[in-house]
Amino acid sequence: MIGHVGTVTAVSTPPGKGGVAVIRVSGENALAVAEKCFVPKNGKALSALPPRRAVYGNILLDGEIVDDGLLLYFPAPNSYTGEDVVELSCHGGPLLTGMVLEATLKAGAIMAPPGEFTRRAYLAGKLSLSDAEAVGLAIDAVTRAQVRLSAEDSRDRLSSAVGGIHDRLLTLLSSLYASIDYPEEDLADLSREQVAEGVSSILSDLSELGKTYRTGRAILEGVPAAVAGKPNVGKSAIFNRLLGRDAAIVTEIPGTTRDVLEHPLPVGRALLRLSDTAGLRETDDPVESIGVERAKTTIRGAEVLLLVLDTSRPLEKEDIELLALAKDFSGAAVLLLNKSDLPSAWGKADLPEGSPAAFTVSAVTGEGFAAVTAHLEKALTDEDLSLGSDAILTTARQSAAIDAAKNDLSACLDALNRGVPIDAAASMGEAALASLSEIDGRTVTGEIVDEIFSHFCVGK
Amino acid sequence: MIGHVGTVTAVSTPPGKGGVAVIRVSGENALAVAEKCFVPKNGKALSALPPRRAVYGNILLDGEIVDDGLLLYFPAPNSYTGEDVVELSCHGGPLLTGMVLEATLKAGAIMAPPGEFTRRAYLAGKLSLSDAEAVGLAIDAVTRAQVRLSAEDSRDRLSSAVGGIHDRLLTLLSSLYASIDYPEEDLADLSREQVAEGVSSILSDLSELGKTYRTGRAILEGVPAAVAGKPNVGKSAIFNRLLGRDAAIVTEIPGTTRDVLEHPLPVGRALLRLSDTAGLRETDDPVESIGVERAKTTIRGAEVLLLVLDTSRPLEKEDIELLALAKDFSGAAVLLLNKSDLPSAWGKADLPEGSPAAFTVSAVTGEGFAAVTAHLEKALTDEDLSLGSDAILTTARQSAAIDAAKNDLSACLDALNRGVPIDAAASMGEAALASLSEIDGRTVTGEIVDEIFSHFCVGK
Repeated sequence: MIGHVGTVTAVSTPPGKGGVAVIRVSGENALAVAEKCFVPKNGKALSALPPRRAVYGNILLDGEIVDDGLLLYFPAPNSYTGEDVVELSCHGGPLLTGMVLEATLKAGAIMAPPGEFTRRAYLAGKLSLSDAEAVGLAIDAVTRAQVRLSAEDSRDRLSSAVGGIHDRLLTLLSSLYASIDYPEEDLADLSREQVAEGVSSILSDLSELGKTYRTGRAILEGVPAAVAGKPNVGKSAIFNRLLGRDAAIVTEIPGTTRDVLEHPLPVGRALLRLSDTAGLRETDDPVESIGVERAKTTIRGAEVLLLVLDTSRPLEKEDIELLALAKDFSGAAVLLLNKSDLPSAWGKADLPEGSPAAFTVSAVTGEGFAAVTAHLEKALTDEDLSLGSDAILTTARQSAAIDAAKNDLSACLDALNRGVPIDAAASMGEAALASLSEIDGRTVTGEIVDEIFSHFCVGK
Repeated sequence: MIGHVGTVTAVSTPPGKGGVAVIRVSGENALAVAEKCFVPKNGKALSALPPRRAVYGNILLDGEIVDDGLLLYFPAPNSYTGEDVVELSCHGGPLLTGMVLEATLKAGAIMAPPGEFTRRAYLAGKLSLSDAEAVGLAIDAVTRAQVRLSAEDSRDRLSSAVGGIHDRLLTLLSSLYASIDYPEEDLADLSREQVAEGVSSILSDLSELGKTYRTGRAILEGVPAAVAGKPNVGKSAIFNRLLGRDAAIVTEIPGTTRDVLEHPLPVGRALLRLSDTAGLRETDDPVESIGVERAKTTIRGAEVLLLVLDTSRPLEKEDIELLALAKDFSGAAVLLLNKSDLPSAWGKADLPEGSPAAFTVSAVTGEGFAAVTAHLEKALTDEDLSLGSDAILTTARQSAAIDAAKNDLSACLDALNRGVPIDAAASMGEAALASLSEIDGRTVTGEIVDEIFSHFCVGK
């Protein structure tokens, strides 16, 4: 693990111009740092102030007043990081904020790397690893469902669900160990069959929990999706219509789109990471040809395919080929029968047997898109899951830990049923226990912790 | 005055992504608003919490938790605005911050217009108008001298200097009035001559104070400056060298610069608002011709002219014309004899009698620019003025008020000396007193207040 000792400082508010900025200092010398760069108006020593009470005063750099502002002192352990924390609020000018930061650096603090405050909070046991991940997700959130799923009560529900399963498994394993350690004394509360039954029930609960990740991921991480089709069927117009703004350049010239554009698109609670792609056709234009190759790569990487067809012109050989591609698509595919505002040359009834769900739409009038959005939300999330009351997995790390626990417990159950020695079965159960502990970060490795915090912004 | 009543709310931290954001609510319902969208973890009622003590809890929107964060309650009158103020700190994601703002709006607060919190602070007598202006200047500051001059101790020094003069004048006028009201009783402490002497001394102090505005303005507002010269003498290269980065496109093709670029350039404590301009020449190119016209307008509006001449080529007729222009320039002009890295065709000794200060420089090597900067700082600011101990005027509004006071006092002095009736002289003195009161905003009009706060950002 990258070690950061000492007292750290950073600007915690967003960069730029505003009314107020906050500089956060954390570590055992936080108060000593503050005493060198902040003079309270009431003339009292900072150490004599009541904890967590805002005090007004002057902020000094090189002995000169740079600003007047507020200081909040959170003595350890009742702070965000669990260490002594001082928060200085100053006026939110970029240069001014930088000068206040400099004052804390000159007073002995060192620059906090990105995510350092939250990392320290985690290391001090103030936050679980899932909590810490949620902090990052909340800051990056672009949909309300993301905010909802990152909120404290959602995290707490997941934590209790995992904790409950963990504790049930621990009880079962204790019983197994008792029978290993004192086989002759029949100390075990439960028979081998009862333990197997318990493991089986846990496995089923883990499976249920594991299934929630599909929804959690669709909400938080988003699902890669591609708008595809042959040239000039209106892909970019549909892309813009879905996003509600002119993200892609639209012309009547086939082959206008070359770069692959990606934008986030909320569809109900879920989020699509939607890519517009170049029209798929044979072309001699070298730039367009690169665009077509990129389009193919994007479609291969997508989990949702929005295939656009033009109903104002008869279906051609290229359309039929693309329909076959959509039919075989590994993820969710929908057909968008575009240009319903023009007289139609064909309709849904003319589509081959077994084609994906088709929607008649018009990028010009906006007709039909509400149905597409509703269909995709249904396809990507489990509508029975409530963001307000269910435990939902939100990160790939959590999901992988649940999968690992399931694998180990399956092996454990198998061992119990096949009558292998109890200590072998117990060790598999213990591996599952360790995986479950990883979700809250109780047994996680330093590398994973570093990876998680490396995505944070400075000052968090 | 634009009236804003009720409880207002705004995001006070800069927009964008960060660890922490602050939403500020001010007005008589601030606590009621907070109670609807914040639930403290300690289960206590917000009204039962000690003032200015940070409390941890959940932030709610539509009854659902959106974040966990801190609340600070500043009861009136001990708050920034002098009203009840609540500050909510949440995680600094743009959407999340917007949702917390929405929660305060749904709880009954209304959106604060730009500068509303500081305007309320001024109206409640928590800040003088000069203080309020300084808040805006501190947020916009790009140089350390600007921060220094906006800081509280600088403002206090100006305020006491003006207040001291104001009170001396008030004493003199009281004496005059006593002699008007009770002429027979000889109640006046001072003779007409003594009053005239006092007014004369005040006038001289006002003149001294008035002179500081030149320095204050050069530091805070900055001075418009233009880099000018004929084509291809290296104006843009010098512009970039002065700024320390590639702000303007430089080529060997004469006429490359067309748009007028303006960038802030600190020269010591002062700030130049430096414009690069198109090379001045007759041209048939219509775009370049517009550029030349704009260059001329920029030069006319500048107070500092940096005329660039190329010493590697003989002086031409155009150079001689430009030298005449520089000699007659109303502001500060300097000649930059550029390309000292090349063999020179001429030097300082060849310049006409009475030319402005000339500096041999090279945009390529950077030679000579330190002397230019030092010269300009000296020309634009009074080096005897100390930012750490002198009272310095910082805004045009303050300077205009001092000028008005000076005019009225001159008239008053003249009246006293000419023996006009004492009440006429006293009314002129009173007008001066009113002008001095304007500096701290005691007698300022609503229109001026609106004008000042209209430049603020939302949330301040």
